[in-house]
Amino acid sequence: MSGGTLYGIGLGPGDPELITLKAVRLLQGTPVVAAFSKAGRTGNAWTIAAPHLRDEQTRLRLEYPFTLEVSVTDPRYHQEMGVFYEACAAQLAAHLEAGRDVAVICEGDPFFYGSYMYLHDRLVGRFPVQVVPGITGMSACWTQANTPITHGDDVLTVLPGTLPEDTLVERLAHTDAAVFMKVGRNLPRVRSALVRAGMLERALLVERGSMEGEQVQRLAERAEDEPAPYFTIVLVPGRQGVR
Amino acid sequence: MSGGTLYGIGLGPGDPELITLKAVRLLQGTPVVAAFSKAGRTGNAWTIAAPHLRDEQTRLRLEYPFTLEVSVTDPRYHQEMGVFYEACAAQLAAHLEAGRDVAVICEGDPFFYGSYMYLHDRLVGRFPVQVVPGITGMSACWTQANTPITHGDDVLTVLPGTLPEDTLVERLAHTDAAVFMKVGRNLPRVRSALVRAGMLERALLVERGSMEGEQVQRLAERAEDEPAPYFTIVLVPGRQGVR
Repeated sequence: MSGGTLYGIGLGPGDPELITLKAVRLLQGTPVVAAFSKAGRTGNAWTIAAPHLRDEQTRLRLEYPFTLEVSVTDPRYHQEMGVFYEACAAQLAAHLEAGRDVAVICEGDPFFYGSYMYLHDRLVGRFPVQVVPGITGMSACWTQANTPITHGDDVLTVLPGTLPEDTLVERLAHTDAAVFMKVGRNLPRVRSALVRAGMLERALLVERGSMEGEQVQRLAERAEDEPAPYFTIVLVPGRQGVR
Repeated sequence: MSGGTLYGIGLGPGDPELITLKAVRLLQGTPVVAAFSKAGRTGNAWTIAAPHLRDEQTRLRLEYPFTLEVSVTDPRYHQEMGVFYEACAAQLAAHLEAGRDVAVICEGDPFFYGSYMYLHDRLVGRFPVQVVPGITGMSACWTQANTPITHGDDVLTVLPGTLPEDTLVERLAHTDAAVFMKVGRNLPRVRSALVRAGMLERALLVERGSMEGEQVQRLAERAEDEPAPYFTIVLVPGRQGVR
């Protein structure tokens, strides 16, 4: 393998101070920096990285062809996203082939539900690759809620809120602690699953953990018809430990 | 509430560069720094924090009364650990009452299977408390294995290797991705559970992720009688995403 190195850099959950020393060092030294973003939006990754970037670095904005307009259950979704990721990978490969290192910056941790992996899978083996882990959004949320999530021998289950309600209920029956990701518009289903599992009273809702406007409340105290923003996580803390 | 502030500071998984800017700032500015450690050992937390500490800071070594000599199933364990945590909390409270901020430094993330929470639970409400999340050991391990752990709608289950084998098999049947914590001497049981769940071929073993001497191998290729060190994690990556 030759050419530049591909870096997948986790920037953490949003608070600009929750970036690591390693991420800062690599951001400062990499000539090409790339990030996914929604069309027309700056994107949190650029905001977090901004204090560490210089004007002479090349910035690549990888704009998703769509975000919520096409459902993941629509066959078009996988086809068009596949074409998009291929085009992004080719754009990065051109820089790497020319010997330029490329940093793909990502909120959270690149290998934990991150889009970075769709570039990684296409470029690993062709170029040297190094990934830098980051603090996840869920860690920021349980920290913001001031609540230990797991003690001792607790089992933790991380559940995308996009799953069918019956699946969520079944998974909740077999865990001590739970984290619901991708809650947003799925909040009514998540709430209903928690009610059926007898866990509503333990559940906490965290909006925008570690970002501006963050808010924590008991899910049971939230109005049922209040919509939840995209960056919402629901937590069910585990059992108590040694008292 | 008055007095000093208690900080629970996550230092990340071991690599001294995987500490956050926030942790560094708080470490440098806190007059009293405390950490749990095994009797007679320096402890990784002190090693990670060392470059950011000054001689004039007070250092409190909170030495466990025992580590592996007493089983968690022994009633003595909970009783003696409870007494120990009470004594530690009292020691910290004396500094806090005198108006001195105290930083409890922790490997990984304080609220994710961390011992910090036993101090937190005893002091929260009496003094101002602030927790700083850290990169978990499991994030370091999947990064070291160069393997995305979860894509799209994957369910991730985090399983302590201390659980009974039948419980592990049952949990594995209902997840896409899995992380086994606290593997060490429990490796034979973890392996057996993975074989019964039909997941051995997908499993990776990571020793000492993000620390010196780190090593990744396919679990199926490891000799069955080779013991695993304490800091061992077994990963089962989730499904593939958009190709």
